[in-house]
Amino acid sequence: MADAKSSKPDVTALSHVSREAFRDGMAHLAGAVNIVTTDGPAGRAGFTATAVCSVTDTPPTLLVCVNLSSSVAPAFLQNTALCVNTVGPDLAELAMAFGGKLPVDERFVEQDWSADVTGAPCLKGAAVSFDCHVTARQEIGTHAVLFCEVLSVVRADSPSASVYYARKFHALDS
Amino acid sequence: MADAKSSKPDVTALSHVSREAFRDGMAHLAGAVNIVTTDGPAGRAGFTATAVCSVTDTPPTLLVCVNLSSSVAPAFLQNTALCVNTVGPDLAELAMAFGGKLPVDERFVEQDWSADVTGAPCLKGAAVSFDCHVTARQEIGTHAVLFCEVLSVVRADSPSASVYYARKFHALDS
Repeated sequence: MADAKSSKPDVTALSHVSREAFRDGMAHLAGAVNIVTTDGPAGRAGFTATAVCSVTDTPPTLLVCVNLSSSVAPAFLQNTALCVNTVGPDLAELAMAFGGKLPVDERFVEQDWSADVTGAPCLKGAAVSFDCHVTARQEIGTHAVLFCEVLSVVRADSPSASVYYARKFHALDS
Repeated sequence: MADAKSSKPDVTALSHVSREAFRDGMAHLAGAVNIVTTDGPAGRAGFTATAVCSVTDTPPTLLVCVNLSSSVAPAFLQNTALCVNTVGPDLAELAMAFGGKLPVDERFVEQDWSADVTGAPCLKGAAVSFDCHVTARQEIGTHAVLFCEVLSVVRADSPSASVYYARKFHALDS
């Protein structure tokens, strides 16, 4: 996997905005609720993320931001299999479990999971699942941005999704 | 600005998913509707983007994906000032104008804009505006990912935002 640490910005001195003002502003940038999973040599792990977005369709690529100090970071940095499962309001409780302090293995107990192309856990009942191979990463401050080529897409017939906005879940119908 | 072209992935051969299947899946990954602007030596420009997300609060950083073949790309790649303006349903028409074929200068005619720290156009009436300095970029296929340190955040008192999901705008209240 390519590693782009050399382009880490060195501009801390420029920062005029407090961490609190940034977080408060970011609470008003809505994001889809995704349960992001991995499996492989470094073990199975998963967490809930809104910091996921499309990058390009050539080759089909998305990105996921991972906090380097989180308990799941080692698995996501060492494995190359990753699945983004976008969930709807029916899976809000599971999204909260994956976003909380529950030990990693207990997070996977309640729901049905399957392996698609890469072996990362794909969630049955997700609005859409993107099964990916991590192809590059870039570290920025406390986080790593993982660039992921999408190898398989599984979409529900009548998906409904949730977004996180103003520190609450909001349901969307398609 | 640091440039991380060396970590561009070279994995096209792995791709098992068609561009259409990827786009259809991505239509079900909801994203906030943002009018992203720039100004500087390469001129003023702006476009509508959902591919924007938070990266880290240390230092406060977000990212924006830009299509390298778009008419606005040269301005975004050469200037270092960038403003992400998250908009609500009252600005849906403006978001469509910035997402369409209207010549760049005509996009700015209808609304009030101001310069904050960097000089990039901040939109009056946005739910939240993040005024940024572009600190690094990474090219992935057809797109560049711009990493942006946030220097100022301006938030409306009672913001409402829009997300784009299933190829439609959806309104959110805070």
